[in-house]
Amino acid sequence: MKGLAILGSTGSVGTNVLRIVEAFPDRLRVVGLSAGTNVERLAAQVAAHRPRVVSVATDAAAAELARQVDLGGIRVGVGVAGAVDVATHPEARTVVASAVGAVGLVPTYRALEAGKDVALANKETLVMAGELMVAAARRSGSQLLPIDSEHCALHQCLDGRRPEEVRRLILTASGGPFRTRARETFALITCAEALNHPTWSMGRKITIDSATLMNKGLEVIEARWLFGIDAARVEVLIHPQSVVHSMVEFVDGTVVAQLGVTDMRLPIQYALSFPERWDAAIAGLDFSRPLSLEFLPPDRERFPCLELGYRALATGGSMPAVLNAANEEAVGAFLEERIAFTAIPECVAEVMGAHRPAALASLEDVLAADAWARESARASLREKAPRAIV
Amino acid sequence: MKGLAILGSTGSVGTNVLRIVEAFPDRLRVVGLSAGTNVERLAAQVAAHRPRVVSVATDAAAAELARQVDLGGIRVGVGVAGAVDVATHPEARTVVASAVGAVGLVPTYRALEAGKDVALANKETLVMAGELMVAAARRSGSQLLPIDSEHCALHQCLDGRRPEEVRRLILTASGGPFRTRARETFALITCAEALNHPTWSMGRKITIDSATLMNKGLEVIEARWLFGIDAARVEVLIHPQSVVHSMVEFVDGTVVAQLGVTDMRLPIQYALSFPERWDAAIAGLDFSRPLSLEFLPPDRERFPCLELGYRALATGGSMPAVLNAANEEAVGAFLEERIAFTAIPECVAEVMGAHRPAALASLEDVLAADAWARESARASLREKAPRAIV
Repeated sequence: MKGLAILGSTGSVGTNVLRIVEAFPDRLRVVGLSAGTNVERLAAQVAAHRPRVVSVATDAAAAELARQVDLGGIRVGVGVAGAVDVATHPEARTVVASAVGAVGLVPTYRALEAGKDVALANKETLVMAGELMVAAARRSGSQLLPIDSEHCALHQCLDGRRPEEVRRLILTASGGPFRTRARETFALITCAEALNHPTWSMGRKITIDSATLMNKGLEVIEARWLFGIDAARVEVLIHPQSVVHSMVEFVDGTVVAQLGVTDMRLPIQYALSFPERWDAAIAGLDFSRPLSLEFLPPDRERFPCLELGYRALATGGSMPAVLNAANEEAVGAFLEERIAFTAIPECVAEVMGAHRPAALASLEDVLAADAWARESARASLREKAPRAIV
Repeated sequence: MKGLAILGSTGSVGTNVLRIVEAFPDRLRVVGLSAGTNVERLAAQVAAHRPRVVSVATDAAAAELARQVDLGGIRVGVGVAGAVDVATHPEARTVVASAVGAVGLVPTYRALEAGKDVALANKETLVMAGELMVAAARRSGSQLLPIDSEHCALHQCLDGRRPEEVRRLILTASGGPFRTRARETFALITCAEALNHPTWSMGRKITIDSATLMNKGLEVIEARWLFGIDAARVEVLIHPQSVVHSMVEFVDGTVVAQLGVTDMRLPIQYALSFPERWDAAIAGLDFSRPLSLEFLPPDRERFPCLELGYRALATGGSMPAVLNAANEEAVGAFLEERIAFTAIPECVAEVMGAHRPAALASLEDVLAADAWARESARASLREKAPRAIV
């Protein structure tokens, strides 16, 4: 029986985790739940799973939770301290880190320090603080298990092989909705067009990142920390069908690939069942009809965000955190229709150009770089807004 | 340092094994070499690798070998006893079984009994006597490592996973040269057409087996014994590009595939380096240009040999050995232009229909079934010859 603590239990990953717990009641048990302010959903989860400990964002949410569900002996915490309490509960063996953004950073770090395996759905954690997270995991002997479908694929293809046996990691990318769109019309791309992803149904921010290919830039950074492979050996390949979720080429010239339907429950279940594989009600790939899979190199001029990801990783230190923060601000502005699609990489490049990178000694350093980059990005975006309105 | 004994050292697999030994002189050492009558090549191999023990097919070949190379303290054996001596040498940890046909059966069996790991390039061994071979390996704790590229791919995809974690094995097949040829012209297929394989360069017999898809029928049987997966969970998928060498679908709905160039050195080196992977001078797949991979279900009516393979496995006992022997005779007759292409499955089906299957208690039983099937096939082929001349 594996005890689970879930950070971000009311989000899309969190609710899928709970569906899997319900499918395997004799293998998984919920020990802790942490959410933000969606008290109604959290109350239902608490009633169904009766964890040992719960946390919410605010005192008001905690009070509301107590009104909505009989807490019995369940401890309720608030804010970062409450989330850390959930993430480090003695009965939790695996912590699912699916809280969005910087909120998850500290509890995830404490979980790794406490020797918990971390099933990581929060991309920012490794992009912002990969070096610190990996060092914490190494000290305590805990494992980082990716839930991101590409990294879950790489994890399966590597299957415990050492970095010396790897020639390169190949992250596949659908190429997003603008793979073949005329480049001179990129400034005219609307929000609705960018949100129309060809193969995956995801949240708004990550869908824009897929359209700019920044998502792949972030994933290159993530892969470097998860698997200890330097960026020169992490490549990106466009694969419009999203059937092959990623590949590993080994030193003997062989390539191992992971394929599957585009269903987030696959990587989530793998992270929870690892090192085993459990029978799932998810249909396999349909090979009863002809299937055609295409692969082609990415057009780096069309998608400058990919290059920015490599550049941030090569610089290292605080630069990846700056890339991430500037991108979040720029994507937010685009989603609010304040800037053009092409202003996203422009903003990120400007902020990175103005940043003086420093080594990261602590999470405080990470958060400081994040705050600086957001401020800097907002200034850049204010300037862009007027000229972006076409 | 891994000691190797090579059965069939002068053949195509054997010479590739020795090239790999030369590339890794600090990891592999040749302990024994067994060949047929190609004394000239064997003498050069003996001079270069100085094994402990050697064997040849006949006394005359042994005498000729002694004339061509200074044998020093090297022991020379003859016939099956000589090959067994090579296969069971105390310093051999891995035996490469690449002797063609029934010649390899007894030495391979003795190697498994003696606890040697066997790198198996000889398909017939498992088709004819899979049950006995697997039982011998289980008793001694030795491992069977496939060199066949499809099974090597499955071995890599499985990577030690238990049969209960597998939903199905998916063997890929190029589909051969007649995948899209009009079926009503199959009787007119010439030897030269059948020998013109679209993706792999191989020996004549296996190239014809690829054209009839009997090769896949044999591989289904091989897979069943290598991996302990019943035939209902072994599927065949046409993949004209031969880039994906095979795939495994696991119970959690995920598919793992192995990809690579069509170079036999890849599976040979994997079998020798296992459980490690060694750096190879073999180029990886070229992803710098667009690549398109197609998959489609096989047309079982067009290729009745595939069905015959499944049927032989379902019957079990001596039937797979009978299938194999009848097919060898029929392909031989086709290569000598004595029968039509379509007479190959007809002959095999007739011999299987006339066979009364029995359990296999020993290699003698296997060889008796093989001899009966060859005699029966020759009779069937004599009848077919006149009417097959178009």
